[in-house]
Amino acid sequence: MDSPAVTILKNGLNVVVEPQPWNPGLSFTLLVPVGSVNDPKDKLGAANMLETWLWKGAGPRDAHAFADALDALGVRRHSGAGVEYTTFSASLLPEGLPAAMELYADLLQRPHLPEAAFESVRALALQELAALDDQPARKLMQHLRREVFASSHGQPVEGTRASIEGMTPDSLREEYHRRYGAQGSVLAVAGGVDAKEVFDLAQKHFGSWGGKAPSSPPVKLTEPHRFYLSQETEQVQIGLFYRDVPPGDYNFYAARLAAMVLSGGMSSRLFSEVREKRGLAYSVGASPGSVKGFGYLVAYAGTMPDRAAETLRVVRQVIHDLRQGVSRAELDRAKVGLRAELMFSGESSRARSSTMARDVYILGKARGLEEIEAEVMDVTLERINLFLGKNPYDDPWTGTLGPREVV
Amino acid sequence: MDSPAVTILKNGLNVVVEPQPWNPGLSFTLLVPVGSVNDPKDKLGAANMLETWLWKGAGPRDAHAFADALDALGVRRHSGAGVEYTTFSASLLPEGLPAAMELYADLLQRPHLPEAAFESVRALALQELAALDDQPARKLMQHLRREVFASSHGQPVEGTRASIEGMTPDSLREEYHRRYGAQGSVLAVAGGVDAKEVFDLAQKHFGSWGGKAPSSPPVKLTEPHRFYLSQETEQVQIGLFYRDVPPGDYNFYAARLAAMVLSGGMSSRLFSEVREKRGLAYSVGASPGSVKGFGYLVAYAGTMPDRAAETLRVVRQVIHDLRQGVSRAELDRAKVGLRAELMFSGESSRARSSTMARDVYILGKARGLEEIEAEVMDVTLERINLFLGKNPYDDPWTGTLGPREVV
Repeated sequence: MDSPAVTILKNGLNVVVEPQPWNPGLSFTLLVPVGSVNDPKDKLGAANMLETWLWKGAGPRDAHAFADALDALGVRRHSGAGVEYTTFSASLLPEGLPAAMELYADLLQRPHLPEAAFESVRALALQELAALDDQPARKLMQHLRREVFASSHGQPVEGTRASIEGMTPDSLREEYHRRYGAQGSVLAVAGGVDAKEVFDLAQKHFGSWGGKAPSSPPVKLTEPHRFYLSQETEQVQIGLFYRDVPPGDYNFYAARLAAMVLSGGMSSRLFSEVREKRGLAYSVGASPGSVKGFGYLVAYAGTMPDRAAETLRVVRQVIHDLRQGVSRAELDRAKVGLRAELMFSGESSRARSSTMARDVYILGKARGLEEIEAEVMDVTLERINLFLGKNPYDDPWTGTLGPREVV
Repeated sequence: MDSPAVTILKNGLNVVVEPQPWNPGLSFTLLVPVGSVNDPKDKLGAANMLETWLWKGAGPRDAHAFADALDALGVRRHSGAGVEYTTFSASLLPEGLPAAMELYADLLQRPHLPEAAFESVRALALQELAALDDQPARKLMQHLRREVFASSHGQPVEGTRASIEGMTPDSLREEYHRRYGAQGSVLAVAGGVDAKEVFDLAQKHFGSWGGKAPSSPPVKLTEPHRFYLSQETEQVQIGLFYRDVPPGDYNFYAARLAAMVLSGGMSSRLFSEVREKRGLAYSVGASPGSVKGFGYLVAYAGTMPDRAAETLRVVRQVIHDLRQGVSRAELDRAKVGLRAELMFSGESSRARSSTMARDVYILGKARGLEEIEAEVMDVTLERINLFLGKNPYDDPWTGTLGPREVV
């Protein structure tokens, strides 16, 4: 498999294609750098509400006709706003690509944002906010981000009740005009398609899209601390946030492999120490994450109140001990595990298109799976253990949610 | 793509293979007909606990060595007990297949089920049960099944606190010996592999496995009724259960297409009436399901308490109105949607292996994607509308969960 083909249109839109000749389907992802990070303080949740509102009619079609047209192409769609960007993904049969591209061009460049649909958009945003309260694990993770970042990276994607209630059609439209545009956006396509065809379609449908990229502030952190959210749940949720290396860093794959040693399989340290040996938590793990220019590792566990203190202690200890290095057998297992993970992500055109869109956003380039694999294989035992010794995972932000505080 | 190749070993193990020559990876699923449906009344949750216990050492390896061996092959595993069966799935690089097959043969045929690990298995089962209480949507769906089935299909997969606390190592071992065996089990493989190679490996590692298939009772239903679960949630969860045609029925794909019209995309009736037009619920939909010999359609919505009554009314009305038939445009969209769904499920070796295992369990045969597609395309407008007129979706079991009853 070759590296993905990349081009940048004159208006700043990044286009990246990975042809998968064996694949009878294809997926594309449009990423616009519009997220909660650039929501104004008095319009929290704006990026999220905009994403919903966009679907209420665009170009020559009202909402109903737009939905009919997409469904007539058999498009499986996924879209949503996050911290740094909003994505619009579509999976479909290749012959539908030109028509689908035209529809998504309307969606992003010529949405109606009709007044009549606004109250329903607001109602859905309030529902989404309420649903979060019924999902303790998700709720804790959202608060964790809020506690960690001093910059606007901590702002809630869903907004707040007050911000949603304060939104007006005009104030939300203003956000569309200010933030949606070609500059800094990405179109990523994977599947049974030719790169040239995609570039031509992108030029045709997105070539005249204007707009500036909204700015995202640099990451700022608070001082590591503990916090507690009181909720009458059966289980206690535990979340830990550690600083880590960002994508693009020389040590990025050493860190990814360390995360695999912690949490990549049955033999991983967290699974084996917390779940298998001690039966402390049904669900436990750690996963790496990042925003532009900053990487982190988040560990989590869900456990019974009477085991929460021990669970927290063991999770912290296991992560603390990483500084002493990993064994050759652990590194080998982590490499084959990461290699398998890459390969299975390569099976799915949707996963590939969304990973490539994110890569271009974060790194300014998309990597082929073989390129990533080579970087993973390059990490020697000496290198990962030097990294772990010099960059110990330590001093986490620690949050718990449950019926009583974990002490 | 050809139809999957199928064989049945002398001991009754079904083996099915779909070679995907383009695929650099492969997945297999082992399905054993051990689920909550055949848990004895005084051992509810036994199938679920057994699945956890099996991983605590098998064949020549203790739990730790077993986990190391699997991770050294880069196996991504997924396993779990359900209503009718327990599945063990593995995704891996093709060169690891012989070694992985040997490990899974140990796991199913020669588990240690060690006394020392039993209390940790019990603790995890209790944690899983507690976690269910923190997931209102899942909790309602589990109760819905309990209210609908008069047969043991309604028994809770997770068991109850009392049944889990009453389990002993011996009583659980007895369930392993009584229920785990080749008869009625399925090995399904999809990916970059040759059918002959798989058949040989299956014979070598599973050919001498004995055991009888545990029996599952015929489906019996209660009378349709309403129930309410009181819980201090932010949202009200609504679940509706309708009788539908079973897999293998002449009208099965007519029913699948009707479900697509209800809930298959943005233009689908439930999405458009409940979410888009009225903003009643952020999450709403309907999905077909089945147990052996019996099919059903479950509709769900999560909404605010003050909108719950209207949401319930609209969902029921939309489903009620199906009897008046669907339009040609709706049928065409449903067909292309289902076709796209099939194609994207075909991208993933794991999805394919688990679908084939389930097909063999439910129908006694596995169908290729093209065969299914042909059956879907065969459904004419006349046929689907005749079906909907003669088999109206009506008289559902209705459950709600939330801070107050929906009236």
